[in-house]
Amino acid sequence: MIAVDWGTSSFRAYRLDDSGQIVDRRSASAGILTVTDGGFAETLENHVRDWFDSGERVLLLSGMIGSRQGWKEAPYASAPAGAEEIARALVPVNVRPGIDGWIVPGVVTVNADGIHDVMRGEETQILGILHDLGPGSHTLCLPGTHSKWVEVQHGTITGFRTFMTGEVFAVLKDHSILGRIMNSSAPYDRQAFADGLHRSADASGLLHHLFGVRAECLCGDLDAERSRDFLSGLLLGHELRQARGNAVVNLLGAGVLVDRYAYACEVLGRSTRILDPDAVVAGQWQIARSRRLV
Amino acid sequence: MIAVDWGTSSFRAYRLDDSGQIVDRRSASAGILTVTDGGFAETLENHVRDWFDSGERVLLLSGMIGSRQGWKEAPYASAPAGAEEIARALVPVNVRPGIDGWIVPGVVTVNADGIHDVMRGEETQILGILHDLGPGSHTLCLPGTHSKWVEVQHGTITGFRTFMTGEVFAVLKDHSILGRIMNSSAPYDRQAFADGLHRSADASGLLHHLFGVRAECLCGDLDAERSRDFLSGLLLGHELRQARGNAVVNLLGAGVLVDRYAYACEVLGRSTRILDPDAVVAGQWQIARSRRLV
Repeated sequence: MIAVDWGTSSFRAYRLDDSGQIVDRRSASAGILTVTDGGFAETLENHVRDWFDSGERVLLLSGMIGSRQGWKEAPYASAPAGAEEIARALVPVNVRPGIDGWIVPGVVTVNADGIHDVMRGEETQILGILHDLGPGSHTLCLPGTHSKWVEVQHGTITGFRTFMTGEVFAVLKDHSILGRIMNSSAPYDRQAFADGLHRSADASGLLHHLFGVRAECLCGDLDAERSRDFLSGLLLGHELRQARGNAVVNLLGAGVLVDRYAYACEVLGRSTRILDPDAVVAGQWQIARSRRLV
Repeated sequence: MIAVDWGTSSFRAYRLDDSGQIVDRRSASAGILTVTDGGFAETLENHVRDWFDSGERVLLLSGMIGSRQGWKEAPYASAPAGAEEIARALVPVNVRPGIDGWIVPGVVTVNADGIHDVMRGEETQILGILHDLGPGSHTLCLPGTHSKWVEVQHGTITGFRTFMTGEVFAVLKDHSILGRIMNSSAPYDRQAFADGLHRSADASGLLHHLFGVRAECLCGDLDAERSRDFLSGLLLGHELRQARGNAVVNLLGAGVLVDRYAYACEVLGRSTRILDPDAVVAGQWQIARSRRLV
């Protein structure tokens, strides 16, 4: 089968053999925002025509390709949702005659406060690492522009919360008075980051803490070199203190951002395990099997 | 005497008689950011030369004119600070021979958590309404881009906290994904504002609540017309729940923003009193008298 992870800014395709192992892969910067006039089928053909021509018949697509801005909107499956529920909610898509094409839906949850939360793409990654997690209940964190904290129980996504931390940091850095007082290209200052994490413990709230970054600079206790990472730690500290779940946090991701989350968890007394972020292929394989497509 | 309220974007000058009453006034959009090459004395002469020529000898300036970006930096007076303490910290400035010119300092406080907070300009407004407040202890709120919550006891500013609410709202509206899903020119929706206020009660934190604005839009429970005021209520709700003090909130300001604060206080169970925001002149008069300049 062909597994495609098609997001806002990237396109990744994988060819899998009969046991779900990757035998070939392609990637391009052909994210859904670069596709004009709904030319999703053409874009797909441009990248994997030879796989179709050589006999692949099953195609799964996950990520923002199933959003309103994508190829076809795939309505969210409701949590609790595991591979079976997500497979049942697959949405068919016309690729070319003879191809069994499906879009993986996102997942929606309604939190205790009656407010919706949504994910799209992450559900497939999560299904892909369930085997590594083992049975029982687990807390997962997927760092990103909008980070997800997910509860998994016996192979099912039971609930989750999204935090806008990454985007709030970016807009404050690029567009607020806090950005104007910081040196955005300063080297990473781990102590400043830790100071921000500790600062978040104070009870007077994020909106006050944010002004504190400016006040501390005016009073000489922070400077242009340290304030960016202090702000980063402050925001991440607020996220971690609000994110509930088990003492062990399973981090799904790679790179600098995951390293920061791991360090922040450690500082705030939670242990971490870092899991393979490329689990999306294994997740699509699980879904395809649940639907008996492979 | 001449009282000047000189901020980042505006210049307001008042001529006072021997009992502190306003006998003339001038205003211009000559905020400190529009003054080039340190030409503050020239700018001042351009607007009030005739007042000097006709015999005024005492000049007080308050606001951002005393900041690092202003005419001369006036170091903050430390809270607790009343008219006496602020008058003692006045910083002399050269205007023209024979003129007794002074810049009013801001106030700095160190909160229980060891973090500084600062005000510059608001201290003069506050001194100007102390008489209206009467004796005892009072909670004041000065709405703005960076709103101030101030504790006053027996005529002295004992402590305060600044919240970056207004600027956070603006950057999210203009630069984040939340702004892209809202109609910024929709008419004010008071119910959406109230819904946001109530939403802020939930314990999962602002960074999660912000993403909820998007999730609720994706799920159809919010729309482009309502989301701006829902976000505004959400942020203000977080501020109000964190801002401590008396059950009666004395709001210092005017216009739509103060109306929103008053309504929000009412919804969240605090009563309000709206005070004259033009108190800055009375404040300067108090300071000048404390220093025996008038």
